[in-house]
Amino acid sequence: MDAEHKFGVRKLEILDKSKGFIELLQQLTICDSVSDKEFEERFQEISSCGDDHLICVIEDDRSGKIIATGSVFIEKKFLRNCGKVGHIEDVVVDSAARGMQLGKKIIEFLTDHAHSMGCYKVILDCSLENKAFYEKCGYKQKEVQMVKYFI
Amino acid sequence: MDAEHKFGVRKLEILDKSKGFIELLQQLTICDSVSDKEFEERFQEISSCGDDHLICVIEDDRSGKIIATGSVFIEKKFLRNCGKVGHIEDVVVDSAARGMQLGKKIIEFLTDHAHSMGCYKVILDCSLENKAFYEKCGYKQKEVQMVKYFI
Repeated sequence: MDAEHKFGVRKLEILDKSKGFIELLQQLTICDSVSDKEFEERFQEISSCGDDHLICVIEDDRSGKIIATGSVFIEKKFLRNCGKVGHIEDVVVDSAARGMQLGKKIIEFLTDHAHSMGCYKVILDCSLENKAFYEKCGYKQKEVQMVKYFI
Repeated sequence: MDAEHKFGVRKLEILDKSKGFIELLQQLTICDSVSDKEFEERFQEISSCGDDHLICVIEDDRSGKIIATGSVFIEKKFLRNCGKVGHIEDVVVDSAARGMQLGKKIIEFLTDHAHSMGCYKVILDCSLENKAFYEKCGYKQKEVQMVKYFI
């Protein structure tokens, strides 16, 4: 892929399952094959939240493959005067498509969306090794993430 | 308050605004006074998510005041085989009601809810000084939280 090729960010579409969207997520974490029915049901569940849960992708027009993705959902609070917070999740760039600022494009798209939805802040959790990347995107470390697994 | 008094955890109700719910949130962060109309609108927005966004409280039956609260919302993903993740937010215990394990009760209630909703994990962000408390609740540190403020 050459640098002159333009990669636009758009919302996830239902046909993206056949364009390698699930395989891309498998580069991030455990994700077995998902049936078309499971995919469609989850797609509809997320779509029913409208702009409050957005998944975006970058498609390589030449290969027809999804090569980057990320999501943001909008949490509605009472504090901060009934404020809203954007939560960015599941950001991944195809290992064969690194070095083209696609991750930065995804983060900017999701951050702009949270801003346009009236959020007072947007947050995300990342590993220490990815911290520098998010700092380049204008993020700052604040707290620590705690987790409890059920499986 | 004595240790024998039992404090049950229940879902937030619309009448809790008059029981000091907003004032309790003010102990956590900025939260100016919220009008009854704003409160009701936000309450309905959150309620429309059903069990996917739960706010719980502990009321002191003797004073009629809300003395602890926390929230959890359920994020629907494609990864982890269309898995779900619980996000715990806005946990606060009245400064006059510390030392009675109310925070632990709130976290257990929210964690159990996420589990019952089929989440494969539940996550939260906290300051380093609160890390030990969440470890007592069975949580472990994993990542770092990054934030970008718009205001």
